[in-house]
Amino acid sequence: MLDQQSLELHKKLKGKLSVKGRAKIANINDLSLLYTPGVAEPCRRINANKAQVYELTGKGNNVAIVTDGTRVLGLGDIGPEAALPVMEGKALIMQQFAKIDAIPICLATKNASEIVSVVKAITPNFGAINLEDIETPKVFEIEERLTNELDIPVFHDDQHGTAMVSLAGLINALKIAGKRKKDVTIAIVGAGSAGYAISKLLTAYGIGDIVVFDSKGAITDSRADLEEYKKKIASTTNKQKYSGSLKEFTGADAIISAASPGALHHETIQKMKEPRIVFALANPVPEITAEEAKNLGIAIFGTGRSDLPNQINNSLCFPGFLRALLDLRVKRITNEMKIAAAEAIASCVSKDELATGKIVPDVFNKKVVKKIGRFVKKKC
Amino acid sequence: MLDQQSLELHKKLKGKLSVKGRAKIANINDLSLLYTPGVAEPCRRINANKAQVYELTGKGNNVAIVTDGTRVLGLGDIGPEAALPVMEGKALIMQQFAKIDAIPICLATKNASEIVSVVKAITPNFGAINLEDIETPKVFEIEERLTNELDIPVFHDDQHGTAMVSLAGLINALKIAGKRKKDVTIAIVGAGSAGYAISKLLTAYGIGDIVVFDSKGAITDSRADLEEYKKKIASTTNKQKYSGSLKEFTGADAIISAASPGALHHETIQKMKEPRIVFALANPVPEITAEEAKNLGIAIFGTGRSDLPNQINNSLCFPGFLRALLDLRVKRITNEMKIAAAEAIASCVSKDELATGKIVPDVFNKKVVKKIGRFVKKKC
Repeated sequence: MLDQQSLELHKKLKGKLSVKGRAKIANINDLSLLYTPGVAEPCRRINANKAQVYELTGKGNNVAIVTDGTRVLGLGDIGPEAALPVMEGKALIMQQFAKIDAIPICLATKNASEIVSVVKAITPNFGAINLEDIETPKVFEIEERLTNELDIPVFHDDQHGTAMVSLAGLINALKIAGKRKKDVTIAIVGAGSAGYAISKLLTAYGIGDIVVFDSKGAITDSRADLEEYKKKIASTTNKQKYSGSLKEFTGADAIISAASPGALHHETIQKMKEPRIVFALANPVPEITAEEAKNLGIAIFGTGRSDLPNQINNSLCFPGFLRALLDLRVKRITNEMKIAAAEAIASCVSKDELATGKIVPDVFNKKVVKKIGRFVKKKC
Repeated sequence: MLDQQSLELHKKLKGKLSVKGRAKIANINDLSLLYTPGVAEPCRRINANKAQVYELTGKGNNVAIVTDGTRVLGLGDIGPEAALPVMEGKALIMQQFAKIDAIPICLATKNASEIVSVVKAITPNFGAINLEDIETPKVFEIEERLTNELDIPVFHDDQHGTAMVSLAGLINALKIAGKRKKDVTIAIVGAGSAGYAISKLLTAYGIGDIVVFDSKGAITDSRADLEEYKKKIASTTNKQKYSGSLKEFTGADAIISAASPGALHHETIQKMKEPRIVFALANPVPEITAEEAKNLGIAIFGTGRSDLPNQINNSLCFPGFLRALLDLRVKRITNEMKIAAAEAIASCVSKDELATGKIVPDVFNKKVVKKIGRFVKKKC
């Protein structure tokens, strides 16, 4: 039903974006000012001082949404053409929520080095890069290289966005639970882009202990089978040196799962501390259902779904965070900025509203974008 | 004055383009249809049948305006950032004249192979490529490789656009002069992108004889100093085997100059046949002034300037031609299509209007885009 409706709408629209002029060319005078010969003067100014490109062109408001289509939604490697409807949707949200001019750049290559080269080559017209739906662990290498080699910020929503919104939800959940960040243990289920980034951000935020689980169990430095980025996870988390399975893990104050339906065992939840805080982020089908959550005595339950309370949705973060990156001419994203953005999102739920069923603001809450900007500014 | 005005306008606009949504996201239902989870269905359809990308996304209306900023206007190699105001202006014209969604892709590389790789990588979201202001002879290699390797059309305005508009002007000028194409000799001054392309298109059109001049004189196959593309010019032009200088060239029915101010000698014009037809396309300062043209007895004089009659301006061609390429899903541009477009442009000047001072339609003539579409369609 929804599928068919969405398909019809996409057929009708033939593209969710269009390019609009900020000025009209109605006569030869307009043409002379906006194009030749008048345009030569802004060109000369930028040639003399490259920083002028931010004053005389749209670069400062343009974001490239870059994907190779290898890990799109829950659909997997569907290629750059099939990824386009998602990227157009993302650009549409950026425009309508935060007045960003975003362009989908869907790449006909899966090679990490080539992706880095292409993104480096196209930067002159963009003020920020948004990496999207690129498979792990390749995307970590791409993000790291681009972050080091570009003078514009590189945002990876699947990592940074999910981590910031999860932290926002956690901040408010801990408030309700009356617990301090230094005293809690958090289990992260799934060690993909989201799990990796959540573990890094929670570590930077100062969470007491974090244990990350992949399909083989807890990630600890005693494991010999770890990929490079999982070694990084091992070196900064798991102070308790837990090396068992997820099923047997005891004493979590909160569990954040970015895995797949069924990945979260009921036994694990039954071994949690009270009040139980669980974010089941698999989308559209969460790791456990709302009914299971209720039966398992979960006090604060968050999912990616819009039809349930506590929607932990990246849309809460990326429009405002990218808006802030552009407005503040950020060159490189820091943990302090991400924590500030999470605190901004959390603060959009007022004391009066705050409840087990209301730990994050509504996706359409217009305060969010502005607050993220104000909070991130203090960390620049 | 114009410079300062243009600079102020560019400062005020901070970019001449913006991205606009074709649909509104006002509530969670819109979000579900235009983004997740509904968007998964269009993604699946394209994954199953790649051609569906034209039906379900904006690809079919998107043009990438690709430059490396090495040959911008008369400013030379000013780099990709400084080229951006021109590319934005071009995209603005495409939007307002032909409802095309064009995106400037300004490249931070001058390497021909890298440019080819980048353009090949970004094609999934574009229905056509417009190469712009890339230095010769590099651009010829880039155009040829992309044309052979891509399944979308590669348009190079500095070549194809200038050639089509020049041919349109020539068609009408010959009508006024009462001469047949097979009987005339045309001198082309300047062997850059424009000169090369004009010579190729006039050859395909069936002009009697064409002699192309570079700074060293006539291009003939007896010269040992020719670059690869000039060898191609030599092999298809200059039936009369003229090997002297431009100054001494006798008997041209028309001269088309795409060179620089001063490149066109008065002696050459004095040796032309009557009625003298001269297009002096250097912009903004033509090879000879309107006053000189009058004194030299030029009957039909065209320039790139908007303040003189007979403006031989690419804006007459590229919006309509790209519109046609997109609408007709052309994969590869042919000479037949280019000639059809030139004839379409020429036909927009009615018999009643046709005069020595009116050989091409006004840039703002709304018939042009539609007529190009109709004429090109017949050649597909």
